[in-house]
Amino acid sequence: MRIVVALGGNALLKRGEKPDAANQRANVDLAAESLAKLAEEHEVIITHGNGPQVGVFALESASNPNLSMPYPFDTLGAETQGMIGYWLLQSMQNQLPGRQVAAMINQTLVDGADPAFANPTKFVGEVYSKEKAEEMSKEHGWEVRPDGQYFRRVVGSPMPQEVVETPMIRTMLDAGAVVICAGGGGVPVIRQEDGTIKGVEAVIDKDLTASVLAEDLKADMLIILTDVPFVKDNFGTPEEEDIKRATPSELRARNLPAGSMGPKVEAVCRFVERTGAKAAIGRLEDALDIVAGASGTIIAEGGQ
Amino acid sequence: MRIVVALGGNALLKRGEKPDAANQRANVDLAAESLAKLAEEHEVIITHGNGPQVGVFALESASNPNLSMPYPFDTLGAETQGMIGYWLLQSMQNQLPGRQVAAMINQTLVDGADPAFANPTKFVGEVYSKEKAEEMSKEHGWEVRPDGQYFRRVVGSPMPQEVVETPMIRTMLDAGAVVICAGGGGVPVIRQEDGTIKGVEAVIDKDLTASVLAEDLKADMLIILTDVPFVKDNFGTPEEEDIKRATPSELRARNLPAGSMGPKVEAVCRFVERTGAKAAIGRLEDALDIVAGASGTIIAEGGQ
Repeated sequence: MRIVVALGGNALLKRGEKPDAANQRANVDLAAESLAKLAEEHEVIITHGNGPQVGVFALESASNPNLSMPYPFDTLGAETQGMIGYWLLQSMQNQLPGRQVAAMINQTLVDGADPAFANPTKFVGEVYSKEKAEEMSKEHGWEVRPDGQYFRRVVGSPMPQEVVETPMIRTMLDAGAVVICAGGGGVPVIRQEDGTIKGVEAVIDKDLTASVLAEDLKADMLIILTDVPFVKDNFGTPEEEDIKRATPSELRARNLPAGSMGPKVEAVCRFVERTGAKAAIGRLEDALDIVAGASGTIIAEGGQ
Repeated sequence: MRIVVALGGNALLKRGEKPDAANQRANVDLAAESLAKLAEEHEVIITHGNGPQVGVFALESASNPNLSMPYPFDTLGAETQGMIGYWLLQSMQNQLPGRQVAAMINQTLVDGADPAFANPTKFVGEVYSKEKAEEMSKEHGWEVRPDGQYFRRVVGSPMPQEVVETPMIRTMLDAGAVVICAGGGGVPVIRQEDGTIKGVEAVIDKDLTASVLAEDLKADMLIILTDVPFVKDNFGTPEEEDIKRATPSELRARNLPAGSMGPKVEAVCRFVERTGAKAAIGRLEDALDIVAGASGTIIAEGGQ
């Protein structure tokens, strides 16, 4: 089977851990153990999140006294692709001796007219006082919003349309490689009127990009790996229940927790609805069981 | 022809410029114009330096109060591959509509017993007072040396042996892509006794990596692009002379300026001696003329 796997940025930098390279590398090594088991039996494409990592770089860049302005989010995202891509590349090579592994730098096309740009909602980077936030807004054209008692920059999270380098990813898969790509959902770019592409200040949900990529690569399965074994119905209530199997419409109709589960559910439902193939949400360490249908929340059309 | 091109990190961040992303992107756009002309007629593999860029990230990481220790140089190098790789990828795609362009994250194998590790000479990262340098040395095992009136960390610059992902680079070339790879000379790794690879704290000369890559890819030409039109004999003396053509042994016998020209000369001579193919050192904006033999210092065995 051809399987697209999306790995959470929080799996690489766990809540409460210092953002040291050593901590993240240890987490990547653990992740690679699970992913390598998949790759021994299947064609595997690995994408990953970068939320915590891009936050570290954004803070560093904003604190760099030698810069006229902090690096933009497309560039910061590309930095995280290099860093996390390298870590995953090396760990996967070590787990799979003799196998080709490739890590690519990728861009993801979004629509410049996406309503997310007019209504940015994703907090990014450092917290500022009201005064400093207004100054940064004026100086750099940032949109800033209150985040608790502080102010922070917000950027849009537009829908991914296509990973620009999909043909190259396909070439490497066809050559037998494990491919690490579209990290952080891919560097967000728009197509301009003259046909050229340009980076934009946005963040793309990595699970939605994984869904688009899985569709374009005609994957047999999309797996979103996180730190919970199942999607839960009525989470935190007496009626809480693990969802083990659902069609997209059944899953959408459940009472699911708000927040980060939203894009994951949208990503898997979209993929199943558009391709008829299978998808799953589950724990990183259960990856092999998830493929076997023995763990995780499996999303498939009825009858499968 | 198959041509490996090595682009200096200083071509992307010119001396005296602020290390802003915007400045570097403008330089990358200019570089891409020249490189695209080559790619329209030839199979092109682009490698690039990262000296100034890795310096920026090293400083930022050393100043990050949330880290127990600054990120190691393998990780910092990978960050620059992501960043510069993204910029080059996008600019080249915009210059070459309809053509596939791929940017990869790459590792370069060095010998753990390379004498460069025992005698590190490359200054990297921030300058420290003597006391602070001794503290950092004790705390992190760094080797530190005086650099003017301050102290700085030094790391080794071992000889590159092989770009680990060379087979994947070949696959993408064979598919017709322009390939951006082995940025900063590649992330330095050593092979351990159990066969696994591991990042090391070192910097690799990007021109020497380009030479190894050109040899392994059976390139027809290696071009090292810099900001001088020719290698100069007796530089800065009344006998100063542009070298327009030389065999490797002639070039080695000339009175060449010390410093950064050393690895460039070694890189081209090595490539020509080992393969019999041609190499050149010249200006970025002259790239097409250099291939035509009409500009730059051309290095070839006699009779070619």
